[in-house]
Amino acid sequence: MTLLCLCFLWQTALAEVIKSPNGKLTLTFALQADGVPTYHLTYKGRDVIKTSKLGLELKNAPALTSGFTVADSKQRTFDESWQPVWGEVKTIRNHYNELAVTLKQAATDRTVRVRFRVFDDGLGFRYEFPRQPKLDYFTIKEERTQFALAGDHKAFWLPGDYDTQEYSTVTSKLSEVRGKMKAAVTGNASQTTFSPTGVQTPLMLKSQDGLYINIHEAALIDYSCMHLELDDKNFVLESHLTPDAVGDKGLIQTPALSPWRTVIVSDRAGDILESKLVLNLNEPTKFKDTSWIKPVKYVGVWWEMITGKSTWSYTNMDNIKLDSVDYRKVKPNGTHGANTAHVKEYIDFAALHGFDAVLVEGWNIGWEDWFGKHKDYVFDFVTPYPDFNVPELQQYAASKNVKIIMHHETSGSVRNYERHLDSAFQFMNKYGYNAVKTGYVGDIVPLGHHHYDQWLINHYNYVLEKAAEHHIMVNGHEAVRPTGLARTYPNLIGNEAARGTEYEAFGGSNPDHTTILPFTRLIGGPMDYTPGIFQTQISVINPQNKSFVHSTLVRQMALYVTMYSPLQMAADLPENYNKHLDAFQFIKDVAVDWDDTHVLEAEPGDYITIARKAKGKSSWFIGSTCDENGRTSNIKLDFLAPGKKYVATIYADAKDAHYEKNPQAYTIRKLNVTRKTKLAQYCAPGGGYAISVMEATK
Amino acid sequence: MTLLCLCFLWQTALAEVIKSPNGKLTLTFALQADGVPTYHLTYKGRDVIKTSKLGLELKNAPALTSGFTVADSKQRTFDESWQPVWGEVKTIRNHYNELAVTLKQAATDRTVRVRFRVFDDGLGFRYEFPRQPKLDYFTIKEERTQFALAGDHKAFWLPGDYDTQEYSTVTSKLSEVRGKMKAAVTGNASQTTFSPTGVQTPLMLKSQDGLYINIHEAALIDYSCMHLELDDKNFVLESHLTPDAVGDKGLIQTPALSPWRTVIVSDRAGDILESKLVLNLNEPTKFKDTSWIKPVKYVGVWWEMITGKSTWSYTNMDNIKLDSVDYRKVKPNGTHGANTAHVKEYIDFAALHGFDAVLVEGWNIGWEDWFGKHKDYVFDFVTPYPDFNVPELQQYAASKNVKIIMHHETSGSVRNYERHLDSAFQFMNKYGYNAVKTGYVGDIVPLGHHHYDQWLINHYNYVLEKAAEHHIMVNGHEAVRPTGLARTYPNLIGNEAARGTEYEAFGGSNPDHTTILPFTRLIGGPMDYTPGIFQTQISVINPQNKSFVHSTLVRQMALYVTMYSPLQMAADLPENYNKHLDAFQFIKDVAVDWDDTHVLEAEPGDYITIARKAKGKSSWFIGSTCDENGRTSNIKLDFLAPGKKYVATIYADAKDAHYEKNPQAYTIRKLNVTRKTKLAQYCAPGGGYAISVMEATK
Repeated sequence: MTLLCLCFLWQTALAEVIKSPNGKLTLTFALQADGVPTYHLTYKGRDVIKTSKLGLELKNAPALTSGFTVADSKQRTFDESWQPVWGEVKTIRNHYNELAVTLKQAATDRTVRVRFRVFDDGLGFRYEFPRQPKLDYFTIKEERTQFALAGDHKAFWLPGDYDTQEYSTVTSKLSEVRGKMKAAVTGNASQTTFSPTGVQTPLMLKSQDGLYINIHEAALIDYSCMHLELDDKNFVLESHLTPDAVGDKGLIQTPALSPWRTVIVSDRAGDILESKLVLNLNEPTKFKDTSWIKPVKYVGVWWEMITGKSTWSYTNMDNIKLDSVDYRKVKPNGTHGANTAHVKEYIDFAALHGFDAVLVEGWNIGWEDWFGKHKDYVFDFVTPYPDFNVPELQQYAASKNVKIIMHHETSGSVRNYERHLDSAFQFMNKYGYNAVKTGYVGDIVPLGHHHYDQWLINHYNYVLEKAAEHHIMVNGHEAVRPTGLARTYPNLIGNEAARGTEYEAFGGSNPDHTTILPFTRLIGGPMDYTPGIFQTQISVINPQNKSFVHSTLVRQMALYVTMYSPLQMAADLPENYNKHLDAFQFIKDVAVDWDDTHVLEAEPGDYITIARKAKGKSSWFIGSTCDENGRTSNIKLDFLAPGKKYVATIYADAKDAHYEKNPQAYTIRKLNVTRKTKLAQYCAPGGGYAISVMEATK
Repeated sequence: MTLLCLCFLWQTALAEVIKSPNGKLTLTFALQADGVPTYHLTYKGRDVIKTSKLGLELKNAPALTSGFTVADSKQRTFDESWQPVWGEVKTIRNHYNELAVTLKQAATDRTVRVRFRVFDDGLGFRYEFPRQPKLDYFTIKEERTQFALAGDHKAFWLPGDYDTQEYSTVTSKLSEVRGKMKAAVTGNASQTTFSPTGVQTPLMLKSQDGLYINIHEAALIDYSCMHLELDDKNFVLESHLTPDAVGDKGLIQTPALSPWRTVIVSDRAGDILESKLVLNLNEPTKFKDTSWIKPVKYVGVWWEMITGKSTWSYTNMDNIKLDSVDYRKVKPNGTHGANTAHVKEYIDFAALHGFDAVLVEGWNIGWEDWFGKHKDYVFDFVTPYPDFNVPELQQYAASKNVKIIMHHETSGSVRNYERHLDSAFQFMNKYGYNAVKTGYVGDIVPLGHHHYDQWLINHYNYVLEKAAEHHIMVNGHEAVRPTGLARTYPNLIGNEAARGTEYEAFGGSNPDHTTILPFTRLIGGPMDYTPGIFQTQISVINPQNKSFVHSTLVRQMALYVTMYSPLQMAADLPENYNKHLDAFQFIKDVAVDWDDTHVLEAEPGDYITIARKAKGKSSWFIGSTCDENGRTSNIKLDFLAPGKKYVATIYADAKDAHYEKNPQAYTIRKLNVTRKTKLAQYCAPGGGYAISVMEATK
């Protein structure tokens, strides 16, 4: 008894407490009796993260998990505002109270610092490894950061996987994860699950008493991507890093920093969507000139290949070697989408409707056997198929003030991509390309590496840096999910790293998919979701394909607002837009960069309604997405400027609309509105609405 | 009985036989009863390779080892002569009889071709995988090529290892390999042995009845390096390929070729050394211009670091990050070898004595913690230490008609090297460097890969190709041992890939080392052995280092002839040469490119004496090396031109010379000689002799 009491006193003595600027969050750091560092987070007095252990296990070295004493502890307050190069709001406030605890492990003479930042919207903390003689180079065996939850929360989760996040989100209690895992792991071009209770971040949670909690990471640089391993008896999540080819989870040289581990929390779901915590935990950009970075609205030669109407490849050969095929002499398949004449049609369409750019996939040689072969030399990124005239198209596009977006599919062969990176970017500079969509479909070559291991994380950031040297914007597909790095590298204007619209042509996604993604995947940064599919029955495009988009036409428009991105595609074929030019007007009008954002209503898995003010303009755009049940959305336009009059154009599901049975039934009506206006707007099952609000001209 | 007889007949019927042009070698291909392909090689009626199986096991696919029938069989004779860009002889005859057997595996509808070439000096054969629907991409699980030997031969072997060949050669019977393996595996910066009876190639063998046999491979391109696994009961060697990070042994896309498996054979040891079989099995170069490739005799800032007199690094810091150290502000250690003033001394020395170039190691930042840390970003290859003035030194060197040889140590971090390759080669072009010594010390990064796996083989060849684009010659250290690729890439002017002279400063090498290397490592191509150590007691340079060179001074000179290389270093310090300028004259005189070569006498492990005629000149140079026993060498100078008179300068061990006890005792005498001259020349234990033979001027 005496010993226990002493320990308790000792622990209490070493506890450090800081609060969020508004006082609602309380972070407690404490050492347990055996020198185990722990933290504890409350929101309005309710447990968000119960006492949870911190630390790392190392390879061939003593663990950094216990035996610590506090050598030093510092607190400070930080408050600044900064302007993103592009974003949901014009100005972002970065306001937190900070606690930095320096821990000494006497037995090994090693020091680790844990830095906590408590914002009004949540917590970020990271490990810092100062330069020191006894901890110079080390290999992480596993990071042992716990997130002990207060109960069996509802979770919006994806199976933990080292190579893909392209799964449907499962909504279940944490205790149900294990039972639902097997069915959740659907097939993918490259996938490596690791545990029956392993899940990905950003992980969205909702407690039974209504707390919304999001766990993710920020500033993933030179470190392995974190997954979460669930102890489904105690509802404790623990970090699980992505291993490399030999099972190591990170080679570290001090001084070094881990990424931030983030916990966003509120009792209002909309606060999660409005949080800028992840961005704030990233470093400001070092780019001196960012004038070359511009949000992009684009169309592209893409959906026609996704749906099977045309092909990326120029021939139907299989098994080709880039350096031994003379494409001028082989038989074209006649289905090649990226041909000069056809691309010109897209350029014409883009120019006519005011789009910035045209993405062209399948322009370069190598697509005949690009996929799943583990080829090293799969593309060279500079040689077009013979029917794709690079200079002619660039001249044509330039004459119409349209950009062509480059496409670099790597097929996961990263050494090959790095070997060609300089020449590929020089090629882009020469021909006036200013943005590239990268792709990492399939297993990483060399085999053994994973899309999310440290070696690949390093690769993605290398590409960003090299691209920036060439003033090139990057939209990375199948790369790691973003962690707010766009603050540091604002040329990272998009990522995929989730189940995008193409899955609507591969069997479809759940109708509630877009009511969840902003709470999960989008917490780290924008997604190139490629919305805007008006012809939701794929069989109209390709009779062989029986898939359909699990969304009404109108909801496809709403996504331009609800799925924030500075890079937005109108993904459908021009011919489909031409059939609905009245609705298409919204896609033409909608902004891709914003001064302000208000989440009007939100509940993960059910609905999201967001209003955003176009950057530098008086116009607002509202989008709403709902799940398969449909609903009536009640919103107030009180975000509008006082004393001003506006005209709202409301694009709405018709009363008999339905994502499966009647997706294209919509209405368009105009309405004079002010900041006092209230709207009750019906959303069909799998539907939503889109509203443009323009300042009245008279 | 009936069945057995039928089988026998069937096998006989399918046997194909070809002979070498001179008729001494006979190659028999036959299918065993179960459709297993085999070959059999005899020399003058004696078994060299007894009936041995051919084939490969594949990953996740049926094996290519049995069930074959002969679909086609073709024979042809080839005879041409070609001139190497540099070499031991001016003209090489490529003369063989060829058998190409196309094998069909009916059960899988797959085809493999085995191509045999029988030369007068041995056999080469390879697998060819034609383009075909049922064999387009495959992964090798293991190659199952056997070399069934006729007995318990004497072998000159190194432990099989995926990462190093820097072992002392063990001389033993094959049956003794297992027992001697453990002691043979000495420590190395990176090493991965795989079997108690695994050995490396080139493997030199001698049968009890006096047949000399060498097994190696030729044209190792986009394939994994082959080791040999010994069945020490039956004396059957079987191919064992180097695995990659996931254990795969080669990803193949058809059409594809394996490297050639080579068996050089003769009853005269000198024939093994004179064989051009490995070169002949490589493809002619595609380089249109080779005028920029020139043999090089050089000195360098190297031995002083190897011996511990000076350092590669500029400071004594540990744990540095390239991008965060300002070397202008840190404390120099005062021992940095590659400083401007000191390099100028080497340039002066090179110019005074007619050397082409000066190698400078340790010129670039990063050496403080370059080794053994598995760092990714370990060097940038373009930033000099502050005391190394690149433009000043290049100007100084150019003014003295001397080149500086670039050094690119990668520390095994190959992605980092490839990332910097373009800028590094551009840097070399800008500052007039035309040759680079590359290094791969330590484990390959990313971990899991091996120095000799397919991914690395691909890397080394990529560096060669990129270097050629920049007209740069390459001397690759710690890379895979050569396989005659210098025919195709004549800018590959050197490799290490064996235990070089630096080991004489790390404890020493066996006195017979240089009587073996030409029979083993040099079969694949030249080695940058860095001979010429006159001060064989390392303690004279660095009192802390008690190693000594296991060679007399004179034998160090002989190595310029016996260890053929177009790249030869005079590795000792200028101050040591200045003490023996009379002997140094031989190193100044000796050629590095040759019109003709005669192996005058040779016995692996005992002695080698070679005479070579300088390219485009009438002078000859003779070198002789012997083992620890010493001997008297009896040679005839009948290779000299008829009717001409020559003056021979004979650099010989003194009578009391000894590699350990009295290494620097030598004599120099001049002698008038003709092609009728016979010489009996004493070689001390661990000694040898060197002779220059100049046409008499009157």
